Amino acid sequence: MEITTKFRIDKPANVVFEAIADPEKMGNYWFSSGTDRIEQGKTITWRYDEYNAEGKIKVLEVEENKKIVFSWGEEGQETVVTITLEEADSASTIIKVTESGFQEDHPELVHILVDQKGGWVYMLSCLKAYLENGVHTLRASLIH
Amino acid sequence: MEITTKFRIDKPANVVFEAIADPEKMGNYWFSSGTDRIEQGKTITWRYDEYNAEGKIKVLEVEENKKIVFSWGEEGQETVVTITLEEADSASTIIKVTESGFQEDHPELVHILVDQKGGWVYMLSCLKAYLENGVHTLRASLIH
Repeated sequence: MEITTKFRIDKPANVVFEAIADPEKMGNYWFSSGTDRIEQGKTITWRYDEYNAEGKIKVLEVEENKKIVFSWGEEGQETVVTITLEEADSASTIIKVTESGFQEDHPELVHILVDQKGGWVYMLSCLKAYLENGVHTLRASLIH
Repeated sequence: MEITTKFRIDKPANVVFEAIADPEKMGNYWFSSGTDRIEQGKTITWRYDEYNAEGKIKVLEVEENKKIVFSWGEEGQETVVTITLEEADSASTIIKVTESGFQEDHPELVHILVDQKGGWVYMLSCLKAYLENGVHTLRASLIH
């Protein structure tokens, strides 16, 4: 069981990659802050001030401008997130996010999948609006 | 089985209501066009040019600036969408979208719920960016 979300962002792949890897840029469209830049092997804490939440990610694999793989989630319930960037042309990138490793027998599995899907579509919408339009106020408005 | 999505939009409820009811405004953040304004009792066709798709909605209930209820979907598989607007203060509205009536025994139920959740989060993100920031290029970038 996995969920995949694909988006077109009208920016080159290196610009999209930097927006994800650099925690200061991330603060404009997703988590408020991160303790470190995304680099292979690092464990990073991401904080979401508005929801008073934070969590650790373990960066499993990085291919500059192409791929970021990390695991996150509560101990024993970690999932793996794979983000790939494919440059459609010099001005446009297809970003694909796949989250996998959900516990198939979890009693709330359907709600978890639905929530995660909503989260990824929101993150990608905010990322696109930030990169293409300089909007940094779209985040933190989904009410749980 | 139903899915609910709630968003805060920093505009008064009448502005949010008009953006949904008026098909010309809708074209900036959701479907490309609609054959008519949303009014109780009407059947309207919404068209999505980029996905070469269109569908009919039946408007079941309208409360000016407060509520829109419609059904949509293929015959025999219609679901009901209830949109409510609650003014948090004069400058801010909580919009809640609930889609219900999914066929519980549909073999693709989980995928349908996950896709619909993604669709609603996307629609609400685009609506917010349109109303707050004048962005009308966020739509039609989710790749199926």
